[in-house]
Amino acid sequence: MQNAASLEKLIKELKKMPGVGTRSAERLAFYILKIPLEQAENLREAIKDVKEKISFCEKCFSITEISPCNICRDVKRDSSLLCVVEDPRDLIAIEKTGAFRGIYHVLLGHLSPLKGINPDNIKIKELLIRLTNSPVREIILATNHNTEGEATAIYLTQLIKPLNIKITRLASGVPMGGDLEYIDELTLGKAMEGRREIS
Amino acid sequence: MQNAASLEKLIKELKKMPGVGTRSAERLAFYILKIPLEQAENLREAIKDVKEKISFCEKCFSITEISPCNICRDVKRDSSLLCVVEDPRDLIAIEKTGAFRGIYHVLLGHLSPLKGINPDNIKIKELLIRLTNSPVREIILATNHNTEGEATAIYLTQLIKPLNIKITRLASGVPMGGDLEYIDELTLGKAMEGRREIS
Repeated sequence: MQNAASLEKLIKELKKMPGVGTRSAERLAFYILKIPLEQAENLREAIKDVKEKISFCEKCFSITEISPCNICRDVKRDSSLLCVVEDPRDLIAIEKTGAFRGIYHVLLGHLSPLKGINPDNIKIKELLIRLTNSPVREIILATNHNTEGEATAIYLTQLIKPLNIKITRLASGVPMGGDLEYIDELTLGKAMEGRREIS
Repeated sequence: MQNAASLEKLIKELKKMPGVGTRSAERLAFYILKIPLEQAENLREAIKDVKEKISFCEKCFSITEISPCNICRDVKRDSSLLCVVEDPRDLIAIEKTGAFRGIYHVLLGHLSPLKGINPDNIKIKELLIRLTNSPVREIILATNHNTEGEATAIYLTQLIKPLNIKITRLASGVPMGGDLEYIDELTLGKAMEGRREIS
């Protein structure tokens, strides 16, 4: 709109966000226009803080404000039970179920040769180093149950098998093609309970 | 998540936005976490600019960076044709059609006695002052076609009628590209009532 270049600019920036189309961006921009200045400042501060304070945990590669993260530092967690996930959001989703008291390794991605994502591009080397340095009795390969996630799990299985570690995968209950972060907590909890060994 | 208070705070702020639930807020927060610092700064700047620069036009009460707004200052527009809308977004929507070359008056709301929104709470007095000060040959009451919008239009009609100005309302009917079977009965009824002869 010619009347308000700054509003147009905000709409443009908001439209870059995932799942935000023109209409949503306009609605959000008008919301920001209407809220008290203080609340807009809170939003700006929150964005700033996230960018300044959050980094990746040096051990598990999840996001954290202090490295190693709370989970890696928690001595009450079972460090012999390691859950491998693609994304920090998957970790959050599993934590919310309360069904898991082990530790995590976040790959920060999945294998996807077509997109040029090879084993070197995700935290697989770091996973193997962790397995070499500290004893793990079971690895849960909780990558997504879609093509890339399955491929990543199969690749990891081949790498880890020689180490004589029990390898499991989340039980069925997770629908095929589903991203972990969108699954309800109950289903995800059940899937964690019913995880099965990969022979 | 215990690991990242600043991320939790950002999610909380994002969740306040209209149409943004917990999942969407998480997705947006992770998006902000991932984008380059520069892009996050652009977003923060855009929010700041909108709050600092945008105000309401002293004539039409639309949003603008300079008051009077571009439309009110545009001498090529037909100032005898006045379109009354509820919200600046309605103005933007009509401008996008390119079908209107008159000027606007934004009410900044609609009548809703149940919510305590009375004629004094929206820009009705200001509309009457405009009509007194400058000649207008036609007023298009383009308030929304819902209960509050219709009530507002009826109220305005009663106020304006004594001024001997032509009063019109946008046509109700079947949206372009709309299948009859999916249109609600009220709209279809209105469309039937307002049917036009094909010459």
